[in-house]
Amino acid sequence: MNKQIILLPGDGVGKEIMESAKVVLNAVASEFGHRFTFHQHAIGGEAIDAYDTPLPEDTVKACKGADAILLGAVGGPKWDALPAAKRPEKGLLGIRKQLGLFANLRPIKGFNSMLHASPLKEEVIAGSDILIIRELTSGLYFGEPRERRENGNAVVDTLYYHRSEMERIIEKAFESARLRDNHVTSVDKANVLESSRMWREIVEETGKKYPDVKVDHMLVDAAAMKLITQPNYFDVIVTENLFGDILSDEASVLTGSLGMLPSASLRSDGLGLYEPVHGSAPDIAGLGIANPVGMILSAAMMLRYSFQMEEEAAEIERAVNDCLDQGYHTADLSSNGGMKVGTKEMTAAIVDSL
Amino acid sequence: MNKQIILLPGDGVGKEIMESAKVVLNAVASEFGHRFTFHQHAIGGEAIDAYDTPLPEDTVKACKGADAILLGAVGGPKWDALPAAKRPEKGLLGIRKQLGLFANLRPIKGFNSMLHASPLKEEVIAGSDILIIRELTSGLYFGEPRERRENGNAVVDTLYYHRSEMERIIEKAFESARLRDNHVTSVDKANVLESSRMWREIVEETGKKYPDVKVDHMLVDAAAMKLITQPNYFDVIVTENLFGDILSDEASVLTGSLGMLPSASLRSDGLGLYEPVHGSAPDIAGLGIANPVGMILSAAMMLRYSFQMEEEAAEIERAVNDCLDQGYHTADLSSNGGMKVGTKEMTAAIVDSL
Ligand SMILES: CC(C)[C@H](C(=O)O)[C@@H](O)C(=O)O
Ligand SMILES: CC(C)[C@H](C(=O)O)[C@@H](O)C(=O)O
Repeated sequence: MNKQIILLPGDGVGKEIMESAKVVLNAVASEFGHRFTFHQHAIGGEAIDAYDTPLPEDTVKACKGADAILLGAVGGPKWDALPAAKRPEKGLLGIRKQLGLFANLRPIKGFNSMLHASPLKEEVIAGSDILIIRELTSGLYFGEPRERRENGNAVVDTLYYHRSEMERIIEKAFESARLRDNHVTSVDKANVLESSRMWREIVEETGKKYPDVKVDHMLVDAAAMKLITQPNYFDVIVTENLFGDILSDEASVLTGSLGMLPSASLRSDGLGLYEPVHGSAPDIAGLGIANPVGMILSAAMMLRYSFQMEEEAAEIERAVNDCLDQGYHTADLSSNGGMKVGTKEMTAAIVDSL
Repeated sequence: MNKQIILLPGDGVGKEIMESAKVVLNAVASEFGHRFTFHQHAIGGEAIDAYDTPLPEDTVKACKGADAILLGAVGGPKWDALPAAKRPEKGLLGIRKQLGLFANLRPIKGFNSMLHASPLKEEVIAGSDILIIRELTSGLYFGEPRERRENGNAVVDTLYYHRSEMERIIEKAFESARLRDNHVTSVDKANVLESSRMWREIVEETGKKYPDVKVDHMLVDAAAMKLITQPNYFDVIVTENLFGDILSDEASVLTGSLGMLPSASLRSDGLGLYEPVHGSAPDIAGLGIANPVGMILSAAMMLRYSFQMEEEAAEIERAVNDCLDQGYHTADLSSNGGMKVGTKEMTAAIVDSL
């Protein structure tokens, strides 16, 4: 198959890890007889520097015509003082919204070889395997009005959801649960928010179509606790945009390997944007020591979700696991012995293992 | 001193632990020559059962005339199916709002004798001592409109803040930091929310009046991570209502002793409502095994914050610590040996140690 892939390396370590993804994808292409064509575009801080906007029209256009998008990371102290509308993150919010990438999928699974690096006790974290599904294009992030009022003495943001926006993400959660352990935990704040009460109703309605999937409702504050005290309680977690932002970042540190976590942002027709969970890490940018695993596993998610290449995706995941089991690790991971390597060596080890 | 204290035992274990608070307060009163007069009123589920409302007018009136309020816990499965406006939690939200208790203070400090029960590795949690200050009477919890729209096909909630509501809670944080380690971490989502940008401005302005206090800003998602990876980074955390709800519950499980954590909800003139962080625990209600420490330490906070009885408060805290060090613990705490006791025995041990 011939696929057009847009690369948005972005800022900080984004460029280095994007190289790794390309190398791995090229190896997969030749092994499986595919053709991946890469087109690189600007986003975030680098786009601000070059085009005075975090999301050039050209980038959006290219993404709209692509089969899938890989993103490195955006942001850095260089652009922190800019007004909100011009900040690198606006590029990220803009591309999600303009492409309609409403479903953010974040698998969180401990690598056995890395659990010793978890802040949690090994008996607490062992065996956890969570898929967090976050609504990504609505809610408090985008609702209007969002403005100063009363001569600048007050302020409002608006949490708006249309029923259809809730329905499609909740459907996604039930479908995903069927491919896993048939358990959906829906997170809301239904004891306070009207939007959460509507959310809960829709989860109940949708659940009727999936009698094989067990559903439970959990308040967001209780979920923030249970992720820490009993992470292996969860299978699929589904929640709205802001709760998903907080809980997925919370969950991302549980396994001790933030640099290894991938994510996918999808719309219904298969177009997706794939990016590692970690940020641009400006402090180590350019040193060649960034952990490429989160980016490489994001590329694997792309093969699975946008290209239906399950075998190829699983092959990358196996190769990554093997390398970790062999003790290869980058500087961000304290390891019990093993081989500390740079971005390129880690990538080469994964390619060798393919 | 003669103080009028309203007792709102509420539901579940609330009644049992409230008894413990009374016993301890009476012991303190006779030791230090004070007089505490207790007046008990209904709230939550018990109020729904008796008066068909979670917050009877009579309760509000009594609280308004009191020197301080102690609350046990509200809620339980019995009332879960009621419509939102009639649920036990409405009693809690209502009393906070009607009394103007805008400042929620939640100290989180590990008891050395209990750190083994933490889900975190001991080297991660050791030494942490955090005060979370949450705004409690505004934001997404109370903003209008909050309603269904478009023939029931859409929904909004509103995050509203007035400048003065932000100013007073942020002041509180700086003042509190001066009594501790002079470090305020302000948590917001300023890269997305207009309300957070205003919040950040006010933190900056207020900070100028406290040059001796170090301030930093942290995004809520980053804070949710750092609480787990490096809890001892924090001294005072200040944040708005919803973020505070999530982060304070997240933080409450870090030390492994949720049943021991107190909280205070204050307004500027010293009136305060004090309650343990844990809930009504309907599964163990009436069994005489509930942990009274969170409630007793809440009573200590009352002495400190509403009655300026610092010595008396410290004396209760010392007695609790001594009992824990001696190995006394309730059933919720797995312990390395020690004496497992019920609510009354635990209370008696603390009183003996006074
Ligand atoms: C950069 C920021 C706007 C973004 C978000 O909050 O969605 C980020 O935290 C994320 O989770 O991808
Ligand atoms: C019961 C609920 C409304 C309440 C809140 O969210 O404020 C509770 O979670 C708390 O934190 O005291």
